[in-house]
Amino acid sequence: MALIGILGGMGPLATVDFMAKVVQLTDASCDQQHLPMLVANLPHIPDRSRAILGDGEDCLGPLLEGIDLLNRNGVGLIAIPCNSAHHWYAQIAARSAAPVLHIAEACVAAVPASARRVAVLGTGGTLKSGFYQAALSARDIEPLVPGADLQQSIATCIREVKAGALEQAAGHLSTVLGALAAQDVRAAVMACTEIPVAARHLSNPPLTLIDSSLELARATVTFAVARGWNRPQ
Amino acid sequence: MALIGILGGMGPLATVDFMAKVVQLTDASCDQQHLPMLVANLPHIPDRSRAILGDGEDCLGPLLEGIDLLNRNGVGLIAIPCNSAHHWYAQIAARSAAPVLHIAEACVAAVPASARRVAVLGTGGTLKSGFYQAALSARDIEPLVPGADLQQSIATCIREVKAGALEQAAGHLSTVLGALAAQDVRAAVMACTEIPVAARHLSNPPLTLIDSSLELARATVTFAVARGWNRPQ
Repeated sequence: MALIGILGGMGPLATVDFMAKVVQLTDASCDQQHLPMLVANLPHIPDRSRAILGDGEDCLGPLLEGIDLLNRNGVGLIAIPCNSAHHWYAQIAARSAAPVLHIAEACVAAVPASARRVAVLGTGGTLKSGFYQAALSARDIEPLVPGADLQQSIATCIREVKAGALEQAAGHLSTVLGALAAQDVRAAVMACTEIPVAARHLSNPPLTLIDSSLELARATVTFAVARGWNRPQ
Repeated sequence: MALIGILGGMGPLATVDFMAKVVQLTDASCDQQHLPMLVANLPHIPDRSRAILGDGEDCLGPLLEGIDLLNRNGVGLIAIPCNSAHHWYAQIAARSAAPVLHIAEACVAAVPASARRVAVLGTGGTLKSGFYQAALSARDIEPLVPGADLQQSIATCIREVKAGALEQAAGHLSTVLGALAAQDVRAAVMACTEIPVAARHLSNPPLTLIDSSLELARATVTFAVARGWNRPQ
């Protein structure tokens, strides 16, 4: 069916940001040329990062309930604008009748070929899971995991976006990027979908940022437009 | 069920804007305190305004299909961030098991009591349908329908938002507001959910604007929070 499924709410503002990117990337001059989506915005799915770190409730069950809801409604593709949730990508993809895009694959594919060393900005859970480091290494790019102090500022930035405190979040992100630039890091993947929401409030980041949410949106639009979902029958 | 249903895609950017307002109006410090939503973003529903003006395909059938989809998934409330679609409010509300908020009721209730004369900025269909004029008159407020030239600029603004041309849309809106202010109009209802998306790009509008999308979002959050949907069990 010509319907994009989005499993969102992780967090809600990141889902809105992702949807805005899908809409803006679609070449359309009227409503009817846009892409149909069914968005399950389910913010009560327990914290993914804490679950990965062994300090939280199970979230695979609730994630699969969301996947089931989307499949029951006949979506033809699923995108999940939450990086940490991709820790369970294999189980999610196995459960879903519709294909599920992988956010880290889309994101890492967009890292410039010239990059030799790229920082990974994500939740503690995403970093522990290691799928970004693996995807970068597979492209012969050295993944740089921020030190504990910087990671604390990244976690604060993410938490602030989830609480709607965008200016404060941008301030923490700015501190992190300044410190990375001082370590001669030239590029970073925003491997958490809250971070680009904060980054919008920065005027001139001191290093190249690759946006996992934007790259997932591009992959989503490419998939759907190739199948004509923007122009039914 | 603790799930807000949103019938959207009319247009898609207006739906994203509405969702952002719901998220930002929710008092939450983490994902799990936000409100769950199921969003049917269905941009292929035929043009509502043209249907009302007798110049387009039927859209009541497709609107009811969207309402059915949301009800099948057990939503406990439906919000429709498209004003023109409310021409069929009676049929939609009669079909839906879940209560359906009325965007014009929410919007007109937010018009300051001091306002005696308020312009209605909407599609030609919404104006022909007349439900804003009726709601304003019921509050003893004189509704002002813009003249044909201004209405053409409003229609252009709406079309530009649907096509993602936000700066141009803001320019057309600015022209309209300037002309209304010159006619000594002090307040206007943005009775089309595309218009606030354009209005965000104006720094200092020359009259008071009441935002139908924001008021629908407020009503949605009030309904859901009163029922504890932000804090399940």
